Amino acid sequence: MNKILDKIVQNNIENITLGKKASYIPALANVPDGIGIAVRDSHGVYTSGDAERMFTFQSMSKIVLLMLALKDNGFDYVFNHVGLEPSGDSFNAISNLDFNQAIKPYNPFINAGAILTTSMIKGETYDEKLKKIIDLSSCIFGRSNITFNDEVYVSERESANRNRALAYLLKEKELLTGNVEEILDLYFRACSLEVNCIDLANLGHFLAFNKDACGVKGDHLRIIKTLMLTCGMYDYSGEFAVRIGLPSKSGVSGGIVSCAPRRMGIGVFSPRLDEKGNSILGVRMMEELNKELELNIFR
Amino acid sequence: MNKILDKIVQNNIENITLGKKASYIPALANVPDGIGIAVRDSHGVYTSGDAERMFTFQSMSKIVLLMLALKDNGFDYVFNHVGLEPSGDSFNAISNLDFNQAIKPYNPFINAGAILTTSMIKGETYDEKLKKIIDLSSCIFGRSNITFNDEVYVSERESANRNRALAYLLKEKELLTGNVEEILDLYFRACSLEVNCIDLANLGHFLAFNKDACGVKGDHLRIIKTLMLTCGMYDYSGEFAVRIGLPSKSGVSGGIVSCAPRRMGIGVFSPRLDEKGNSILGVRMMEELNKELELNIFR
Amino acid sequence: MNKILDKIVQNNIENITLGKKASYIPALANVPDGIGIAVRDSHGVYTSGDAERMFTFQSMSKIVLLMLALKDNGFDYVFNHVGLEPSGDSFNAISNLDFNQAIKPYNPFINAGAILTTSMIKGETYDEKLKKIIDLSSCIFGRSNITFNDEVYVSERESANRNRALAYLLKEKELLTGNVEEILDLYFRACSLEVNCIDLANLGHFLAFNKDACGVKGDHLRIIKTLMLTCGMYDYSGEFAVRIGLPSKSGVSGGIVSCAPRRMGIGVFSPRLDEKGNSILGVRMMEELNKELELNIFR
Amino acid sequence: MNKILDKIVQNNIENITLGKKASYIPALANVPDGIGIAVRDSHGVYTSGDAERMFTFQSMSKIVLLMLALKDNGFDYVFNHVGLEPSGDSFNAISNLDFNQAIKPYNPFINAGAILTTSMIKGETYDEKLKKIIDLSSCIFGRSNITFNDEVYVSERESANRNRALAYLLKEKELLTGNVEEILDLYFRACSLEVNCIDLANLGHFLAFNKDACGVKGDHLRIIKTLMLTCGMYDYSGEFAVRIGLPSKSGVSGGIVSCAPRRMGIGVFSPRLDEKGNSILGVRMMEELNKELELNIFR
Repeated sequence: MNKILDKIVQNNIENITLGKKASYIPALANVPDGIGIAVRDSHGVYTSGDAERMFTFQSMSKIVLLMLALKDNGFDYVFNHVGLEPSGDSFNAISNLDFNQAIKPYNPFINAGAILTTSMIKGETYDEKLKKIIDLSSCIFGRSNITFNDEVYVSERESANRNRALAYLLKEKELLTGNVEEILDLYFRACSLEVNCIDLANLGHFLAFNKDACGVKGDHLRIIKTLMLTCGMYDYSGEFAVRIGLPSKSGVSGGIVSCAPRRMGIGVFSPRLDEKGNSILGVRMMEELNKELELNIFR
Repeated sequence: MNKILDKIVQNNIENITLGKKASYIPALANVPDGIGIAVRDSHGVYTSGDAERMFTFQSMSKIVLLMLALKDNGFDYVFNHVGLEPSGDSFNAISNLDFNQAIKPYNPFINAGAILTTSMIKGETYDEKLKKIIDLSSCIFGRSNITFNDEVYVSERESANRNRALAYLLKEKELLTGNVEEILDLYFRACSLEVNCIDLANLGHFLAFNKDACGVKGDHLRIIKTLMLTCGMYDYSGEFAVRIGLPSKSGVSGGIVSCAPRRMGIGVFSPRLDEKGNSILGVRMMEELNKELELNIFR
Repeated sequence: MNKILDKIVQNNIENITLGKKASYIPALANVPDGIGIAVRDSHGVYTSGDAERMFTFQSMSKIVLLMLALKDNGFDYVFNHVGLEPSGDSFNAISNLDFNQAIKPYNPFINAGAILTTSMIKGETYDEKLKKIIDLSSCIFGRSNITFNDEVYVSERESANRNRALAYLLKEKELLTGNVEEILDLYFRACSLEVNCIDLANLGHFLAFNKDACGVKGDHLRIIKTLMLTCGMYDYSGEFAVRIGLPSKSGVSGGIVSCAPRRMGIGVFSPRLDEKGNSILGVRMMEELNKELELNIFR
Repeated sequence: MNKILDKIVQNNIENITLGKKASYIPALANVPDGIGIAVRDSHGVYTSGDAERMFTFQSMSKIVLLMLALKDNGFDYVFNHVGLEPSGDSFNAISNLDFNQAIKPYNPFINAGAILTTSMIKGETYDEKLKKIIDLSSCIFGRSNITFNDEVYVSERESANRNRALAYLLKEKELLTGNVEEILDLYFRACSLEVNCIDLANLGHFLAFNKDACGVKGDHLRIIKTLMLTCGMYDYSGEFAVRIGLPSKSGVSGGIVSCAPRRMGIGVFSPRLDEKGNSILGVRMMEELNKELELNIFR
């Protein structure tokens, strides 16, 4: 396995400057180039490249936020408020909240949906809710030293007017309850949580077996995997499913967490993105790994 | 297996009048109630209920039309003209053709996409193209006596102004070439082809193994299965994937063709539909079968 | 003239309970029924019915807000940020802010546009800006005792999540600068300013002659009248122009301010609204007055 | 007056190559540059530049088509099928036919609306209907030798897939009855009718006085003028109303017909268009004429 991962990194490292880093905040635009991969299966963890370099969780945190929303509220409550349907639209589309007769966000992996699942995390105080995010991440990653990137957190919060607009629309529709600024704050905290490829591989492995663990029900893991396949890669989800066929979730930091059901978890990282917001080399590494190991669930 | 199928039919037969038949043409509105199921695995075919009753292929024919488009043009050509993304919209949405900057229909399973794949079937004459549809269906179903429901065909063609509008929009965008009326005619012919649950089980079984057969490449079968999972059940596709997790395609005649990869093909039928256009008892039977046999690909 | 106005009120008073009062805040839902009309021409003011009853300015304040924005910034600046086009959509449509490539709100009479013009009122402090609204209203109405309905103000501010969402979207697009909550506060203050039919007739008369007055340029009055004709009555504007043909602006409190260019100003009031948010009897009184006096600018 | 018109033409002739000719059909793309203006008031006709050069009627024919629809069906019937509201969208927008709950085209001056008014012209045969168009044009223009540009007619008909799509959508919604191809044919015939600036000035003058003439009711002329002001210049209508303030209708051939109520009719021509499809020099000439003669109805 180590050989395979090394070969995949070598095949792609020459294209490390292809594409553009996320530019909406300086903290993301200024990260150094890099490439990393990690796999976790029943035998252990395998890595290559910058697999231990830390980057921010970004949209991949939507998985953890959904786990907590499901844990605290159950399937029916959560999915009475947010849909299960892929949108075909980009991650920050506002359309479906207002147009169409749709009364709820398409799914928990578009921003509007993730803000809503964040609002469903129960706790007396902000700190209590944040602790839930930290504790679950800690349990899944198998390490206790969870940190946040404060620069990213502050920048995101300050440039968050579209998300703020989404939150107020959700509030107007009485889908979201609670204090908008507090909910957004928690959401940006989760986005700024620091992870590396090994953490992502552990998260993918955690998802792979539908076993109750860390307080999360196995049945909820199955649901999350399904949503990752249909909605996890923004408006590239459909094509990614056809080409690679693995439940995956990307973030604008350049990470992708992926899962080969009943087999392994995978984490890849490279900060430059394609037009749809997915890591260019991340997608390519996933494609090569899939070919090497025949992981595609439709194969 | 026969016992399981009988139990499933018995569990649902009392609700045989739940929901509404498709009403846009009399030929669909006036079919008698019924319920049937068929499974084909490596050991043979199992059936229960009205598994041999004939109904029209409708949107399930989009699978066969896509197979032929892929066969005649290859992956790249087809998917340069039609997308791979789920739409979150209902089957006859016109939106994405005009709004958004999208320049192609979301996927081959919405009407606009299927009209386009139909236009890609190559042949000197109309009859030659129709023969391709008949021959491929015949090969997949394992029977030579392919028939069409003329009443459905004539009615669909006459009430087809929305599809006609879609076709002219595709033509204006230079995605569609050829004679619009001929292409629509072929499309309605395919929709009016008569099948039963056993045929659908055979089609599902054909899809299950990604093997080259009947002139169709195995790799194309994998792609079609992926699209069935993400886009096969109209705007219920996402929820169907979460609840049942099998590549499936429904039609307004009340049939559903489904596939448990590497295991079996499934065909169910009951003509009354839910609000999204899927067979109510068909979906319920799929849910029960999935629980009995643990077929969900995310399990 | 008094006879005409009395007849118009008598013709309509029996239908005083037709339609529904604005219901989104109790302060509007619970106002008593009533009907009033006032006309101001070069000879003086004529009234009938409840012409002195106070109600809130609501969307009619968008005229005053636009006057101040134009006064403080000039035509070019204002209309580089907000359009001059009718929208065909209802007053709180969010669509055009996001969909289409449109980068600015359609016009200053939809909520997004009016929030933007409010943000353009210059002043060191909130109080200074509010004073500008009070002073201009005072000058136009010819009375110094400007009051606000605090109950309406507080309720609007609290139920303002859609407007808050609009404001944050405008901020994200860098069309709006300044503190969102302060701008919204000012906007709701203007909406809660108390007026009666005589005030509206004075406002209409002020608009009628394109003369520099109260610090407002005559040329800006011409522009505002044009926008009132094309966009003043929500998505009934086109039909109102065809039927009555006078620059007019309605508010959900049931008032309509109207203007017969070079002839007179008109104010009508009755709190029950039609489906598009315009006063039912207000529109009818305008129609009768128009017929009596042949005011239609296309006549 | 002749001096004024000459000055206006001289002021603009140097910019005769500014902008682009309509390019969707060669017959429009290849016309020579030119500039002309004509005014008709109670004293007679005044012209300057290429006022007698013939060009095609294009969207300006929508005025004549609406006159005939109103004549044959009355106000209520026509406007139960097509709206009176400006759309804020470009002339060939398809959105409102499908999106929104709107069940009819916004107004008779977008293509969908004009195809619908064309379908309302009554006659036993196609020739009878066409004769109505010819006869009314002949009466308004005051000349009997009405001709058509066959090259334009044939090209438009062949490249008409978007209009064809609109027509089939209208048919599906049961707004349009009759044979789609025949209706489109009649519509393209009307678009290809040949006019010059003097004809347009006569049409504007015909509209200016709301007098029953040529079988058209004066009250219908008032309605048409109102629609010209709110919807006549595509998605520039609002700004044109603010800047010039005259009921006007443009066509992609570069003509604009305009009307100063109770005063005069105006026709301008220059084939190069701005981004919204209006004649660049045509709009400029209208602006200068308006300033010279103070025609703006809001002045």
